Amino acid sequence: MTETPHPLYAKHADTLTRALSAIAERAYWSAYPESPSPRVYGETAAAEGEAAFRSYLDADFPLDQPGTTDRVATERSPFGVELGVRYPHGEVDALVAAATAALPAWRDAGPQTRLGVCLEILARLHAHVFELANAVQFTSGQAFVMAFQAGGAHALDRALEALAYAYAEMTRHPARAEWEKPAGKGDPLRMTKTFHVVPRGIGLVIGCNTFPTWNSYPGLFASLATGNPVIVKPHPGAVLPLAITVRYAREVLAEAGFDPNLVLLAAEAPGERIASTLALRPEVRIVDFTGSTEYGDWLEANARQAAVYTEKAGVNTVVVDSTSDFAGMCRNIGFSLVLYSGQMCTTPQNILVPADGIETDQGHKSFDEVAAGIAGAVGKLTADPARAVELTGAIVNDGVLARLAEVTGTGEAVLESRALEHPAHPDAVVRTPTIVRLGADATTTYGREWFGPISFVIATDSTEQSLEIFRTTVGERGALTASVYSSDEKVLDAAEAAALDAGVHLSCNLTGGVFVNQSAAFSDFHASGANPAANAALTDGAYVANRFRIVQSRRHA
Amino acid sequence: MTETPHPLYAKHADTLTRALSAIAERAYWSAYPESPSPRVYGETAAAEGEAAFRSYLDADFPLDQPGTTDRVATERSPFGVELGVRYPHGEVDALVAAATAALPAWRDAGPQTRLGVCLEILARLHAHVFELANAVQFTSGQAFVMAFQAGGAHALDRALEALAYAYAEMTRHPARAEWEKPAGKGDPLRMTKTFHVVPRGIGLVIGCNTFPTWNSYPGLFASLATGNPVIVKPHPGAVLPLAITVRYAREVLAEAGFDPNLVLLAAEAPGERIASTLALRPEVRIVDFTGSTEYGDWLEANARQAAVYTEKAGVNTVVVDSTSDFAGMCRNIGFSLVLYSGQMCTTPQNILVPADGIETDQGHKSFDEVAAGIAGAVGKLTADPARAVELTGAIVNDGVLARLAEVTGTGEAVLESRALEHPAHPDAVVRTPTIVRLGADATTTYGREWFGPISFVIATDSTEQSLEIFRTTVGERGALTASVYSSDEKVLDAAEAAALDAGVHLSCNLTGGVFVNQSAAFSDFHASGANPAANAALTDGAYVANRFRIVQSRRHA
Repeated sequence: MTETPHPLYAKHADTLTRALSAIAERAYWSAYPESPSPRVYGETAAAEGEAAFRSYLDADFPLDQPGTTDRVATERSPFGVELGVRYPHGEVDALVAAATAALPAWRDAGPQTRLGVCLEILARLHAHVFELANAVQFTSGQAFVMAFQAGGAHALDRALEALAYAYAEMTRHPARAEWEKPAGKGDPLRMTKTFHVVPRGIGLVIGCNTFPTWNSYPGLFASLATGNPVIVKPHPGAVLPLAITVRYAREVLAEAGFDPNLVLLAAEAPGERIASTLALRPEVRIVDFTGSTEYGDWLEANARQAAVYTEKAGVNTVVVDSTSDFAGMCRNIGFSLVLYSGQMCTTPQNILVPADGIETDQGHKSFDEVAAGIAGAVGKLTADPARAVELTGAIVNDGVLARLAEVTGTGEAVLESRALEHPAHPDAVVRTPTIVRLGADATTTYGREWFGPISFVIATDSTEQSLEIFRTTVGERGALTASVYSSDEKVLDAAEAAALDAGVHLSCNLTGGVFVNQSAAFSDFHASGANPAANAALTDGAYVANRFRIVQSRRHA
Repeated sequence: MTETPHPLYAKHADTLTRALSAIAERAYWSAYPESPSPRVYGETAAAEGEAAFRSYLDADFPLDQPGTTDRVATERSPFGVELGVRYPHGEVDALVAAATAALPAWRDAGPQTRLGVCLEILARLHAHVFELANAVQFTSGQAFVMAFQAGGAHALDRALEALAYAYAEMTRHPARAEWEKPAGKGDPLRMTKTFHVVPRGIGLVIGCNTFPTWNSYPGLFASLATGNPVIVKPHPGAVLPLAITVRYAREVLAEAGFDPNLVLLAAEAPGERIASTLALRPEVRIVDFTGSTEYGDWLEANARQAAVYTEKAGVNTVVVDSTSDFAGMCRNIGFSLVLYSGQMCTTPQNILVPADGIETDQGHKSFDEVAAGIAGAVGKLTADPARAVELTGAIVNDGVLARLAEVTGTGEAVLESRALEHPAHPDAVVRTPTIVRLGADATTTYGREWFGPISFVIATDSTEQSLEIFRTTVGERGALTASVYSSDEKVLDAAEAAALDAGVHLSCNLTGGVFVNQSAAFSDFHASGANPAANAALTDGAYVANRFRIVQSRRHA
């Protein structure tokens, strides 16, 4: 049933080959330039992308989907820009039926054709990367450069990474094998065996508000490449980036001769809870979700007919033991806190510092000096509002503001959060990070996630206790990132041992241009699947291998 | 933390290399000779193995495990032989604690060392394969040759296959990578990244009565190789084969310098339900189970902290449309029904035949003639009790006898089950297959599994209806095997399409020495994970990939 590959496979075969090497090497590689510079993308790309973005505003989004009965507009920009994009909205039954009908031809097209088409979708999205970046910026609240990188280039890299794993997994077995078993003096037994890659069913991707593309693309493309139609359920606050994605995906699918209903958008009206409706449909056999622990746990417990991949909350931790570059450490941690106002799932929250202070290249620093050093770095990065907002972006939603208010009662503020005026967007809600001092016994406070620009410096008895708190809190509540600062190899080894026990990725002594909240596609794994913050990693073999099954047939040769 | 590989890795590296090729080729290969002939295993092997088996009877099984408080003897041989083997029995807490304590050193030993040790365990088991075969025979009721093959050589092949997948998966990423990202005019960013393979936790293997080794080895060795300590919970009726396995595994582990508590036996007293107790322990992070749909579903629903791999019940189906070898077809199907008295999870149950009959090389055959042809083949194979029992073995437990009694009321018997006298074991319970004729509307009867020597010939309106019934029943209730007989390519294609939709492996026109109930390691996938009969396949990438996680650390180079 596998036909000759579609010409799009040959068109993108080199990219695939390079990506396959990259996932095997896990060294540096990127397929999509992360600099939005005109020298890379041309003089007109930025303006054209912005214009394309603006053309969507206050209009019906151009998407012709089955079952559309009305339109919904649910987005409110953190930058205070009026969006008013109206998305098709309608019947879940019609979406599920359309996706189901699209499956067989896509399944029977085989891995190579599917990869060719998926790679063409990525190429199409890359051609519209500025449009995508604007959409990410104005729905998530990310500053432009970050939206371009994380929401555009890096998201495409993660998508390509997922495609490479999916392809490697689908082709680790031959499509056909000749089996010949010796049978004593008689003729050998001979059989021809055909191994079909069979998708599980419909993939459901549930997007988040802060990283609508970066967190959705791996699941979307891993499911699609392995033969599953995909229904994309965006966060009501960040529909546009995924609507644009679905638009171009459908365009490419149709051009390639496939049913565009292989990728569908399920925008929802306020309070509709369409994700739960979809997640429980028997036809939905894969769910990818990024968001709250509560809802992720609900999906894992209830979407029992599906393979469920979740990324949830956690308590990212920094263990500060000592450093040979105090200024660099403070700058690096400070930058991590400022970036997107701490609204990354990878932002450090708990900074564990011995109450007696630490040894540094600048001599002994007391606990208060360490806290002040980090606060000072944050202060410096946010002193000039015009420069600051290009790092902080805007606050994604009111929940973050509520937590900022709530945290003030938990301990002494080492640094207060400030409201900043955004020079270009006067209605933008901008806040700088707060840092709160806590004792090691305040586990009820720091033992859970405070999503947003909220971090704690926690006074511990010793680095040994810091490591114990690290091990315990991450073991219980999970984390996506952890880092350690020490000039003592033994402490670094102990931190690495604790990280293995807690199942969290560890960064050591980051003092330069790499930050703990950043993970590089093709090299860093995002999340480990080994602690409660996520049950999977982006992206590895386990992330793709169960999105399809192998069904064989055999007959005598 | 990864040390130099243990010398056992080098000792078995060639075997591993060959197995890695085999899983990539899926052609014929076997590492362990399936013939129990003295020409292969030597003149004394059979007698020594039997003597070793007998030495266990009516004695304390030699296993020194933590937490042992008393002994249990729960086996009753289907051959009527007194077994009386007394296994260590004790506290679940002690087993879990011992396994947990054994984990870190095994994790830190790294993939190569673990593979070397696991391959040595297989070599040790192979050196005791006759002992193992006797244990399988006298607990499962399999005839000796089958016990030797399925319970010995083939089980070892499946174990090796699982080891190869586990190794491939653990080593698809390097242990270390240098990452160098260009940074404009400045120095590139350089980081050294270490990727640790981290086990999930304790693996629990829940064995079955009929294939105690074959069905348990893939999960046992996949978990162990990926760094997880394993607690083996045998079926109370088939403890000995797994006790022997645990004994030699512990022996090899200790010799290699590891904690023998990496592999533990959890024998249970009658009614203790120790599997459920273990499956819900938070330390248990992987469960492998073969058995009833009811209990498999319970595990999937309740052992939520674990990755659960289940093989459950199904309705294996044969679609008979036409044949160019009527005698061969009847002989082949008949043999499939006789083998181990239909007590294989792969034995055909529902044989769908058009009521109008079929075209064959012997001209048109009516429905009754087809049914009589299959019944005749069964009759011939079971006519001589002395020869028959070497195919049928004995009835594994009273549940099978109860179903044999129950099925008599469901339709007209084309063939009655007969009790046979076993020449060597007068107390053995031996039954030949029954075949019952049903109409296509009797779905309440044939729409569920009747485990044992029970099959139905079902009269359908047409092959089209047969395929529809095939698609529906397998889609709803699952199946491990399916086969089709047709001399029409279009029907074969339609059957293959139905098999893809239902997600079941299909065999076409088996008329010779290959039988639908047999699956060959390294070539055939056993179960698909794409229908309700199993949520995983033995063995593929998905079966191993989520038994461990990758935890990385990175620091500036």
